[in-house]
Amino acid sequence: MNTSRSEFSNLNVAMVGCGTVGSGVVRILNSSPELLSRRAGREMRLRRIVVRDSARQRDVPLQGIDLTTDFEQIIRDPEIQVVIYVAGGTDPAFSHISRCLDAGKDVITANKAVLHHYGSELFEQAGKNGRTICFEAAVAGGIPVISAVTQALTANRILSIEAILNGTSNFILSKMLDLRQPYEAALVEAQQLGYAEADPAMDVDGTDAAQKLSILTQLAFGTRVTLDQIVRQGIQQLELMDLLVAADLGYRIKLLATSRISRGRLEVSVQPTLIRSDRPVAQTGGADNIVAIEGDACGLLRLSGAGAGQMPTASAVVADLIDYASGRAALTFQSLLRVRSLPALPLQPTDELSRRYYLRFMVADKPHVLADIADVLGRHEISISSVRQDETPDDVDENECVARLVIMTHRTSQGRLLAAQAEIAKLPSMRGLSICLPVAD
Amino acid sequence: MNTSRSEFSNLNVAMVGCGTVGSGVVRILNSSPELLSRRAGREMRLRRIVVRDSARQRDVPLQGIDLTTDFEQIIRDPEIQVVIYVAGGTDPAFSHISRCLDAGKDVITANKAVLHHYGSELFEQAGKNGRTICFEAAVAGGIPVISAVTQALTANRILSIEAILNGTSNFILSKMLDLRQPYEAALVEAQQLGYAEADPAMDVDGTDAAQKLSILTQLAFGTRVTLDQIVRQGIQQLELMDLLVAADLGYRIKLLATSRISRGRLEVSVQPTLIRSDRPVAQTGGADNIVAIEGDACGLLRLSGAGAGQMPTASAVVADLIDYASGRAALTFQSLLRVRSLPALPLQPTDELSRRYYLRFMVADKPHVLADIADVLGRHEISISSVRQDETPDDVDENECVARLVIMTHRTSQGRLLAAQAEIAKLPSMRGLSICLPVAD
Repeated sequence: MNTSRSEFSNLNVAMVGCGTVGSGVVRILNSSPELLSRRAGREMRLRRIVVRDSARQRDVPLQGIDLTTDFEQIIRDPEIQVVIYVAGGTDPAFSHISRCLDAGKDVITANKAVLHHYGSELFEQAGKNGRTICFEAAVAGGIPVISAVTQALTANRILSIEAILNGTSNFILSKMLDLRQPYEAALVEAQQLGYAEADPAMDVDGTDAAQKLSILTQLAFGTRVTLDQIVRQGIQQLELMDLLVAADLGYRIKLLATSRISRGRLEVSVQPTLIRSDRPVAQTGGADNIVAIEGDACGLLRLSGAGAGQMPTASAVVADLIDYASGRAALTFQSLLRVRSLPALPLQPTDELSRRYYLRFMVADKPHVLADIADVLGRHEISISSVRQDETPDDVDENECVARLVIMTHRTSQGRLLAAQAEIAKLPSMRGLSICLPVAD
Repeated sequence: MNTSRSEFSNLNVAMVGCGTVGSGVVRILNSSPELLSRRAGREMRLRRIVVRDSARQRDVPLQGIDLTTDFEQIIRDPEIQVVIYVAGGTDPAFSHISRCLDAGKDVITANKAVLHHYGSELFEQAGKNGRTICFEAAVAGGIPVISAVTQALTANRILSIEAILNGTSNFILSKMLDLRQPYEAALVEAQQLGYAEADPAMDVDGTDAAQKLSILTQLAFGTRVTLDQIVRQGIQQLELMDLLVAADLGYRIKLLATSRISRGRLEVSVQPTLIRSDRPVAQTGGADNIVAIEGDACGLLRLSGAGAGQMPTASAVVADLIDYASGRAALTFQSLLRVRSLPALPLQPTDELSRRYYLRFMVADKPHVLADIADVLGRHEISISSVRQDETPDDVDENECVARLVIMTHRTSQGRLLAAQAEIAKLPSMRGLSICLPVAD
């Protein structure tokens, strides 16, 4: 075996954060150190952990690890070569990671928010300093999607990414349909099971998925996308009836994150989307994630599994640590920096996104209502593919019958659709909110 | 950027074989050399190709490449650093690859047969010579399953692998069920579409899948498995009625390759297997492959896509070449050699494999037939979970009614099952062949 002595020198590791994911990292490192060292080529020693409260009881043994509330101790310790950053948010994460890089330490992180907001700055800084950043755990937890894009698919031009990247909202949508529950009841169950935070806003409004998608988009297409450049729509407005009507039409509704080349431009969106029921993305249930990547050579590649949770995310963090210890991670990161300097694909303006749409209106059950709606759509050059008006599920007003009207359109632009939707909302026959969702090809 | 001059030195590449996959490799290397060079960190130049017939017309441009029928030209060329070996079979593949390693050249191969039969010898030789072997393309074509096992899941103990690894047989089984076709008709269609060879034996009898599974098993569990240690059963004996009865019971029948830890031992099999219809493995249709890997930390990870074909396989070969050029592949291979020296899991004797079973008998429609079969099963301590006797689909003999009897058993050992099956085959009421298939948990 060609293993030089330096490969077997110890690697001194520090960690910032010892919550759910951090505890999982400790658990894995404790579980089979001999096997992990063989894989890494050297012993990996977790020496220091920075926590908010060093007195708190922890459910993992931390003997021999220096627990501190002082981040500066890591910066000052010249023996620490790499820092696992598993605290969340962007402040102080950005300045912490930046200081690690300046102090000559490499960084492994699961923090998608800081990469979304400051990834370009951090990557540039790491490049200048000759440092490495690993971030497999930041997108889709235990699913190796970062390495798929940066390593496995290097022979391809990537054509599209379609993914379910938020487990919480996927759990809620799956429960709603399976148990015929309204949104609120499914959300409460998600919170009770620990899938949703007390404040689930970032999960259900699409922010979390959009941050992850922006990271994948930059890697796959070289294009930097800010949150306001991504067409973003949450699942909070969805009603059970939309899921049931879609199912009846042969579709599932999923919070789909899409990044796709269309006529030389990049279309990026995170929206509840109708997907044909027989497709694997539609069949991804519970809190699972799935990422379907289309490459010009490999065709359609799908990866699915646990996109969050303690041990799956810790699995990705420790895989990064082993990759780092073996020396591979530095080479991968250098390759990533080289590719970043190539020209990026331009973004498609959101108004010009072209898709089919599902429109659901609640309307007064009176003559000429359908004619009025069809007239607005026609004037905006939106062609109707199918119409379906069902008997009233329940009445908004007991003095008036309310009907549910579902229209599937042919392909049209997001701009036309929104303009028509705004006009339709002003029709006197409209009752309650209408819903407008894209349909996947 | 931290890119030293040596990284941008040219890499001189040779290739053995320029058939379907080899032409795909040339096509990718020609398509976007600038992007590939950025990813690799240096220019990759395909200098020589060894072919059987250098006069043959090829559908890819080969300007500037030295086409030869003489393998020795590669060995003698000191500038060739790495050899892409995309010819099939074991002879002369084994001696060719061995000679490349001895001549100081690294090897990238898509040849699963040579790795299955001689992988251990070649890896040991490569280790001694300080050389690297890359083989992502040898298993599941464009699906990065080798890198999943050797890199993405390094933080895990792998608990099980369940996979569809042969696209030809999956295509045949999917067509049989979808079009209500007999085996022979689906096979002819597979041959017409180029999914099956003129001699499809290795695909349909499970040899191809077993070779791939043995490679994955060695990587995931450290255990070397020869073909005769794998419980192996092909799809040739399956009748359409088995697929239909299984569907009716809520299952799909797939040629499932399984490698799983059970009570500290490793169970390895390639068999047509009943899988619950709602599971992603059951829903993998057409010529697609899927690999579901369960790790103790990451949970269940699934990868699916094109497991064969020109461009998906070439995509994996070129990804290996880029991995090699960047320097990562050498580090990965060294890690693989270190882990190989750990103790391997022992194999479960095939007789002791414990599963549930689907049994289908064609029997004379006479009194006491079910009692006779149930008696044999009972004496072998095989417990019946459900029984189903349907009206005769068609008569084997016009003077006698033949009934189809389907028995689902509770969990039992393969040894007991085979013994009972042999005894049942001798019952005077048996008509035609019986079928015995395991049921996945």
